[in-house]
Amino acid sequence: MEVELKELLHDLESLNQSLHDPSHRASLDKLRLRIEHLTSMERSGPARRLKVKDMSAEVVDSNPYSRLMALQRMGIVENYERIRDFSVAIVGIGGVGSVAAEMLTRCGIGRLLLYDYDKVELANMNRLFFRPEQAGMTKTDAAVQTLSDINPDVVLESYTLNITTVQGFETFMSSLKNKSFRPSKEGIGVDLVLSCVDNYEARMAVNQACNELSQTWMESGVSEDAVSGHIQLLVPGETACFACAPPLVVASGVDERTLKREGVCAASLPTTMGVVAGLLVQNTLKFLLKFGNVSPYLGYNSLKDYFPTMEMKPNPQCSNVACLERQQEYILAKPARDAALKAKMEAESLSVEEGPLHADNEWSISVLDDNELNSMDATSSDALPEGLVRELPSADEPQRMVPPDAPLVSIDDLEELRRQLDALNST
Amino acid sequence: MEVELKELLHDLESLNQSLHDPSHRASLDKLRLRIEHLTSMERSGPARRLKVKDMSAEVVDSNPYSRLMALQRMGIVENYERIRDFSVAIVGIGGVGSVAAEMLTRCGIGRLLLYDYDKVELANMNRLFFRPEQAGMTKTDAAVQTLSDINPDVVLESYTLNITTVQGFETFMSSLKNKSFRPSKEGIGVDLVLSCVDNYEARMAVNQACNELSQTWMESGVSEDAVSGHIQLLVPGETACFACAPPLVVASGVDERTLKREGVCAASLPTTMGVVAGLLVQNTLKFLLKFGNVSPYLGYNSLKDYFPTMEMKPNPQCSNVACLERQQEYILAKPARDAALKAKMEAESLSVEEGPLHADNEWSISVLDDNELNSMDATSSDALPEGLVRELPSADEPQRMVPPDAPLVSIDDLEELRRQLDALNST
Repeated sequence: MEVELKELLHDLESLNQSLHDPSHRASLDKLRLRIEHLTSMERSGPARRLKVKDMSAEVVDSNPYSRLMALQRMGIVENYERIRDFSVAIVGIGGVGSVAAEMLTRCGIGRLLLYDYDKVELANMNRLFFRPEQAGMTKTDAAVQTLSDINPDVVLESYTLNITTVQGFETFMSSLKNKSFRPSKEGIGVDLVLSCVDNYEARMAVNQACNELSQTWMESGVSEDAVSGHIQLLVPGETACFACAPPLVVASGVDERTLKREGVCAASLPTTMGVVAGLLVQNTLKFLLKFGNVSPYLGYNSLKDYFPTMEMKPNPQCSNVACLERQQEYILAKPARDAALKAKMEAESLSVEEGPLHADNEWSISVLDDNELNSMDATSSDALPEGLVRELPSADEPQRMVPPDAPLVSIDDLEELRRQLDALNST
Repeated sequence: MEVELKELLHDLESLNQSLHDPSHRASLDKLRLRIEHLTSMERSGPARRLKVKDMSAEVVDSNPYSRLMALQRMGIVENYERIRDFSVAIVGIGGVGSVAAEMLTRCGIGRLLLYDYDKVELANMNRLFFRPEQAGMTKTDAAVQTLSDINPDVVLESYTLNITTVQGFETFMSSLKNKSFRPSKEGIGVDLVLSCVDNYEARMAVNQACNELSQTWMESGVSEDAVSGHIQLLVPGETACFACAPPLVVASGVDERTLKREGVCAASLPTTMGVVAGLLVQNTLKFLLKFGNVSPYLGYNSLKDYFPTMEMKPNPQCSNVACLERQQEYILAKPARDAALKAKMEAESLSVEEGPLHADNEWSISVLDDNELNSMDATSSDALPEGLVRELPSADEPQRMVPPDAPLVSIDDLEELRRQLDALNST
């Protein structure tokens, strides 16, 4: 709109120059002021967040990364800022993929590649992310619009295409290989591919691409009845690929979508899809930033709040040729893997001996050995910082009655202690 | 901006009338057209979704409820439309509460009551929901802005207050009691209270209110290191209240926030908070719409993808007087509860005998007994609908070689079968 207002001002100026009667000067000045006011209104519109050069750990309200950089201080992640180096491809920007993209964007991921051929519809509004006013836009365009507003630091690449077509698959492959974002990177141009599609054919296309490129990926899915889902890690050659254990019955030669009956659609819920997206991106962060245990498979049965886990080895009779090649490579590389693991373990045991585990002890945590603990009397252990009091579930017994060498808190019941610890840990 | 453009047009008209030289007509017409174009651009801005009178199950792209109403056809929920009758109060519109509010809004909940006293800051941008341009707005105002755009059918009530102050607590209590949304409702004016706060004092205020009002609520929390969380169901008198098993160390007489050290903040992640919000709202939907098992407690340890569950009985020595009163009532009501349960079970066993379990068999599922299955020959069982083929993990053995009374699919390995079934179930 700013362009249009500029043209309007220009036309007014031309009129001004063609008018020779000075009595109109005041009217024209008023018009000019009005247009200038409109222009400044347009400019001052919703304030956009500016780009941030470095991730700062400073604790101020204006720092969008303070709560993420705190993961370092808390000892969860060694170097959070590394997240800016990573490229993640998300295939399928639906109920799971769009939320995964938003989570990674808010985490400050370096680069996101988004693939979808579909358009936003009002029928998608029962899931998070897309807004009603985006109905009719392609999902990739709408996602870029929203994500670039949320975090302008993320490099967004949008591919409006169907990866199951010949042309779409070729563009998909070449976009994954493109290393211009970080030319020094080992392997191909992305660090992880996330599959968030809703059909078998598209999963097989992602599987094919990742097997050919030897690229680690994660698969996700939500059941047609909306109440269960799963995530799965696939490392070509090392774990089962998607073709190693295919479904028993699959569509062939026809579009899966036309198999669906008229007037019937799958159910979906923002809850199940939000949980699956959260578990998927959590696994992604653990994988990229090297913390916690990366889950090989995690299911979510929401009716029973049951979360099955398992591991799947590759199938030596897999029908996918590229998978068999990766399996062969993985077997051949075993001696090199073993040697690297041994060297790493030796280096780690050396570094533990050399320096302190945590150089800056922000929380003033000190380690006491059991003898010290036993020799502390109940009085000195009661000396909490000002403003803190102990609250015990059964406050009837005066605390001073605890004998000096009994445990600091007297509890009859182990179950009770577990409850209290859980409550303390998870608030 | 539309008003300003109208004034601009009006001024141009005045100028036109004061100009008597017809040679300027063309310039003025051009200016007028430009302003009219700007007005129509402004008007056609983001289109808002209109209110919908009834929830329709019609499968069309323009229906925002088709995927939710499909839960009925799938046999998950008996009457999804009942969701419009329910009122849910959310205390704390932060990383968990805002996402919970968005999920319930997209599910088409009847009415949401939102409580928070805080403002949106850029430091909140590492969690879902709030946008950078909302920095400086109160969280309640920003939430109402976003949620009313997403689903104008939801009645939103926003309370910008601190429930731990005397005045705030009074307003909180009276808003929960207000029954004008559904005067015929039993009990108080809300069906569930969700606690999504980040401190002990606010949790104790929610606990006090719900104990006094005998109101079921759900508590949620995320750890300071951002990698674990929990949800918990609290039914006054029936389960432990928040005071029944308090944390071992709590702040007293001082604001918890001032206890935090300068320059130190808690870590947070959109993943953990998204998962906790998803589990919380899933439990809410199960509770309100009566499907699946409502979890009494569900933990989430993201480093190990471990999800502990437990149940907590009330503490007969609880320090909360209202909790002890509810416990007494619950014990006294036992005979009535037992009688109601017995009557319900009798009614259910009667209705099972009377009619078919699923009247409309949309998926044409029929039950075969084992004898029928054994007498089917392999040829007829191979007759899949057009466009479907069987894909077996080991396609080497021709399928015709399976003897007629063997299982339909020949698999040596039970593990293999489990993998295939899982893959089939969860795509």
